[in-house]
Amino acid sequence: MTDTPITDARTVQPMGELSPHTEGPPLIEATDAGRQLALRWSNGNQARFPLTWLRDHCACAECRHPMTRERLYMALEVPEQAPAMRLEDGNLILTWADGHVSRFDAVWLHQRRPGQTRDDAVPSRRPWAQDYRPTRVAHADFMAGTAGERAWLTALLRDGLVLLENGPLADEEVRRLAGRIGPLRATNFGARFDVKSKPNPNNAAYTAIGLALHTDLPNWRNPPDIQLLYCLENDAEGGESTFFDGFAAAEALRRQNPEAFRRLSETEIDFRFQDEEHDLVWTAPLLSLDEQGQVIEVRLNNWIRDTLRLPLEEIDAWYDAYRAFWALAQDPRNRLEFSLAPGEMVAFDNRRVLHGRRAFDPSTGRRHLQGTYLDLDMCESRLRVLARRG
Amino acid sequence: MTDTPITDARTVQPMGELSPHTEGPPLIEATDAGRQLALRWSNGNQARFPLTWLRDHCACAECRHPMTRERLYMALEVPEQAPAMRLEDGNLILTWADGHVSRFDAVWLHQRRPGQTRDDAVPSRRPWAQDYRPTRVAHADFMAGTAGERAWLTALLRDGLVLLENGPLADEEVRRLAGRIGPLRATNFGARFDVKSKPNPNNAAYTAIGLALHTDLPNWRNPPDIQLLYCLENDAEGGESTFFDGFAAAEALRRQNPEAFRRLSETEIDFRFQDEEHDLVWTAPLLSLDEQGQVIEVRLNNWIRDTLRLPLEEIDAWYDAYRAFWALAQDPRNRLEFSLAPGEMVAFDNRRVLHGRRAFDPSTGRRHLQGTYLDLDMCESRLRVLARRG
Repeated sequence: MTDTPITDARTVQPMGELSPHTEGPPLIEATDAGRQLALRWSNGNQARFPLTWLRDHCACAECRHPMTRERLYMALEVPEQAPAMRLEDGNLILTWADGHVSRFDAVWLHQRRPGQTRDDAVPSRRPWAQDYRPTRVAHADFMAGTAGERAWLTALLRDGLVLLENGPLADEEVRRLAGRIGPLRATNFGARFDVKSKPNPNNAAYTAIGLALHTDLPNWRNPPDIQLLYCLENDAEGGESTFFDGFAAAEALRRQNPEAFRRLSETEIDFRFQDEEHDLVWTAPLLSLDEQGQVIEVRLNNWIRDTLRLPLEEIDAWYDAYRAFWALAQDPRNRLEFSLAPGEMVAFDNRRVLHGRRAFDPSTGRRHLQGTYLDLDMCESRLRVLARRG
Repeated sequence: MTDTPITDARTVQPMGELSPHTEGPPLIEATDAGRQLALRWSNGNQARFPLTWLRDHCACAECRHPMTRERLYMALEVPEQAPAMRLEDGNLILTWADGHVSRFDAVWLHQRRPGQTRDDAVPSRRPWAQDYRPTRVAHADFMAGTAGERAWLTALLRDGLVLLENGPLADEEVRRLAGRIGPLRATNFGARFDVKSKPNPNNAAYTAIGLALHTDLPNWRNPPDIQLLYCLENDAEGGESTFFDGFAAAEALRRQNPEAFRRLSETEIDFRFQDEEHDLVWTAPLLSLDEQGQVIEVRLNNWIRDTLRLPLEEIDAWYDAYRAFWALAQDPRNRLEFSLAPGEMVAFDNRRVLHGRRAFDPSTGRRHLQGTYLDLDMCESRLRVLARRG
């Protein structure tokens, strides 16, 4: 075991956090309340913290690695007696029975009062309204620094879709843009794919046919989160891109046809992609809900919907529900449709927003998009890091 | 829209499937049963298929793309009247009211009788017994062809852990091995990482300290599935690898302390990793259950467990439950411990099997592992493809 170097406290971010906790009220009182401490701040807020919690959250260099900021302390014992306590500059200093000293920043504690939720730069998801128009960010603004990239990420995470415009017609630009956010998410189609018609397609995207609205790779446990499609050429007739907010549509279905909604959210079906090298299968409902009943994922892809394996008496009802959801996707009021111009990139949440395209005629011109996927985690992380800059 | 070429049926895999469906009983009877067909096979089995299901599963070149094998037909309409039907060589031929002809292989239908489950080469998970010893596969056998790789994948998916031995001491061998299965899963630590002590670690793995049993990256929505660790050097004192079947332990906890099990499976906590470039947070219970109450994921990582944000009255009870689960991990009967030899690789299911290592003394020798992650989907896919070869 190497010795943990004791780093000068001024060179370590206080409390092992990189997010700010500098502005807020100082503590004005700390009292022993049995197996808890009762604290009061200058703004009148009060809270109790269990001794176990306080010991576990000690941020000294022995309890948190000063370089990695990771917790080294394992809360194996319940502190048997209350520590000696004092306030210093409005912060809390505890000296435990074994002599260990823990220092707690008053604002850090205030932000973490039991039951408080975590502040987060990541916005809530907002369903598309009837007049929804995508946020557009100029490529130059995205590249210039915090504000453009932050606007782009915020719109993407809130609306599930965002456009970048006036970008260069450069091969692999999509890879460069994605690489600012995080590593590419590779799948059985590789880390970066070209959407254009190919002579021996193993996937409908690589033909010129129209693509009905769909989710990419619902046959994976975790379909790709964010899809980026960068347009390099688009002068063939047709080929307009279409998008559809699956979450908004699922809520509409819940209102209009609760039985269809229930069936699509409770019935697991198989999705499967097979070629010479792959056989990727996953079983999931078309609509996934969280424990509060909120829709958190849509999986719709008619091409790779596998054999419907249900009890006989459920089959016709499932098709009825499927058709009801599909009918919503046919309503032009629920969908966006536009032609991507060369130098434009659309990014969207593949697990929320369905995408498709109209057929194009490859004899009239070329259509070439370059695509890749990103993890939502890295998009959220990037937004939190940009938000540190205030 | 391009014309879909009509491919000679003999050059297309029947029914658009690559998995075998050649051996099985022929049909001997098909009768109209209202909105269903009633079928009988030569082995006496009978089943009914709704007309909608049959129309939806037509595998002709118009309804399934002959190259991609993807479904082109969208089941928007319920067939209004029963098709004309006949048996030909024991297979079912339907002629629909609009003249469309669907041919169904008898064995394919037999395998897909409503309510039947899907055959799968992927084994069920088996918890470690007291005398569990990992399957070992020689590197040469893994590389030689189907049998070795299939044995390795089967053990990995069944036991959550498998060893490869007698491999070369070659830089990046782990990348070559993983690349046979699928693309590397990249994270904030890159696509391939070196586990050795580093001067400015941003993670405890890059130090020489002991690593308590843990899950990698529980602060991601989807932590990496399969971790591969290939040993290139290991002559420092200490550094033994430890493993622990989180699923078996969770079941033990459920028996011994149902209240602790309930609390760890119902209480969501935050995991968070922060450095200058990242702020990755996810909220999940320590034990995730499926709808049947089966444990499907363990997330335990004391280093990046973030602030415990719970209502005051739940905090002490959560720590009690955490300690109870942790105590199981301390019992040597529940854990594997061994030294990886140079040329050996361990692969394990990171969402099931916790891993750790004893501290090592870098002044006594070198320890160097190269690691990467794979998606479980690609491991399962590869096993299904290998199983096609019989």
